[in-house]
Amino acid sequence: MSFIYYIDLLGTMVFAISGAMAANRNGIDVFGATFMGFVTAIGGGSLRDVFLNIRPVWVEDGNYLIAIFIGVILSIILNKQLDNFARTLFLFDAIGIGFFTVVGVEKSIAYESSAISAVMLGMFSACMGGVIRDVLMNVTPLILRKEIYASACLAGAIIYVLLSLTPLSDGIVAFISASVVFTIRFVSVKYNLSLPSVPMMENKS
Amino acid sequence: MSFIYYIDLLGTMVFAISGAMAANRNGIDVFGATFMGFVTAIGGGSLRDVFLNIRPVWVEDGNYLIAIFIGVILSIILNKQLDNFARTLFLFDAIGIGFFTVVGVEKSIAYESSAISAVMLGMFSACMGGVIRDVLMNVTPLILRKEIYASACLAGAIIYVLLSLTPLSDGIVAFISASVVFTIRFVSVKYNLSLPSVPMMENKS
Amino acid sequence: MSFIYYIDLLGTMVFAISGAMAANRNGIDVFGATFMGFVTAIGGGSLRDVFLNIRPVWVEDGNYLIAIFIGVILSIILNKQLDNFARTLFLFDAIGIGFFTVVGVEKSIAYESSAISAVMLGMFSACMGGVIRDVLMNVTPLILRKEIYASACLAGAIIYVLLSLTPLSDGIVAFISASVVFTIRFVSVKYNLSLPSVPMMENKS
Repeated sequence: MSFIYYIDLLGTMVFAISGAMAANRNGIDVFGATFMGFVTAIGGGSLRDVFLNIRPVWVEDGNYLIAIFIGVILSIILNKQLDNFARTLFLFDAIGIGFFTVVGVEKSIAYESSAISAVMLGMFSACMGGVIRDVLMNVTPLILRKEIYASACLAGAIIYVLLSLTPLSDGIVAFISASVVFTIRFVSVKYNLSLPSVPMMENKS
Repeated sequence: MSFIYYIDLLGTMVFAISGAMAANRNGIDVFGATFMGFVTAIGGGSLRDVFLNIRPVWVEDGNYLIAIFIGVILSIILNKQLDNFARTLFLFDAIGIGFFTVVGVEKSIAYESSAISAVMLGMFSACMGGVIRDVLMNVTPLILRKEIYASACLAGAIIYVLLSLTPLSDGIVAFISASVVFTIRFVSVKYNLSLPSVPMMENKS
Repeated sequence: MSFIYYIDLLGTMVFAISGAMAANRNGIDVFGATFMGFVTAIGGGSLRDVFLNIRPVWVEDGNYLIAIFIGVILSIILNKQLDNFARTLFLFDAIGIGFFTVVGVEKSIAYESSAISAVMLGMFSACMGGVIRDVLMNVTPLILRKEIYASACLAGAIIYVLLSLTPLSDGIVAFISASVVFTIRFVSVKYNLSLPSVPMMENKS
């Protein structure tokens, strides 16, 4: 459990960096950047916990907020090395959504949601922070653009639920599922893959 | 109760179709369309339940998510017949907001909110899914444009609360209130009616 | 307690005026203006309560909704005197965020959040209504623009938590903290102060 806890803190920090960097790029002041880091980092997990009718972890455990502040400070310091850092950040983010998906499914099942809802809530945990970040920055959310992001989380969440019906140990199930999310995300960006959209009628435009 | 349950599932499916169609029209991929269908369908009811401090129904009852998936698949299949379908969808949507308003007011009163809050929450149930859909698609919410939509729900919600003080049976009260919502919505679109906005001072621009 | 209650109602009304005025300026109909007034007024406090896993006050106490309706009606009546009114509104708003910050921190501590989370939730109470208003109106939230607004609330919230460790009475702590918020906000607007943003690398553009 202690291991998951530190992974969760690390993931929170990575998402805070991503939110603060989005703000920095748009010339938003340091406070706004902190706010964006906070919202991006806690958005997904908070929404999951609100739907499970429990308190988000950060309300009682101040360590999450400290992790966010460290992330925001890192985003300012590392801003100078942005080009190399962006690639590192992408890797961290891909690892982060893998773990967040797994933690989200696990927690939802622990609080007795149905299996199909646990899949949705696992995906929500990983993706909704970014959606809120994009809505606040007034851009179309990444999740609605032609990138494989939330669908990677969805695939990992489904695999987690299916594997948890097998005799495999929890740790192995978690590791496989998180790896699936990471691999799909990594491969889709590397080879520029995307899902098809629904073709419209010819006489539309 | 069983009847209300199936109406609720049907309404959920209709809203999922509406969200997914909005995504399809904007060339968003099939996953994004599923996400939009989901958010549109569960947004209003989930917000109501979160404010009532109870769990949204779909967290425990997977049937709602299945209804949403069916709606998303229908939106893809029916995409080809979009022109005729849009009219049918409008009718379904008008029926849907009627029932959602009634279910929202009923549930809020059952969970001991004040009468005036039950009216707001009934309107929220019916309208907030669409608001979230529009915010995510980065357009001004329908509710803020010159159409009579949420005000139809508001009228129906007020009538429900008033009629529930009379000796009329619950079923009749529900039917009358839902009909009021449907009729106002239908007539306002057919005759292109709208509410006035507040006139600004002459020296504004 | 009675005094805080009326301050809370007054603050709610002021935020409702601000939300409805934003809608009126954009030619939104009277219903949309009421909706915007409502969302702006209850947004911050509701989010705080949802995170604390308790019911927002307005769900059980209809007086908050009545305060909002009065605010919306005032926004229509006072629309004609907008120029002078805007200055008065700014003062009210600066007082309002002071009190909302203090009420938010107090309530969060009363419901056993950690000190650092109480600071965040106090700031949320005061600022998130405006953020939601701006997102719905499809503009970049004020909180992300170059104005000292949320940072004033943050400063007041931190001071509240620090002073509550001293032997000062609750009333005095609340008064000092609210005054800090008001003063920072007032001075920053009067002298057009802003926080710095993170400078980008030279080779960016």
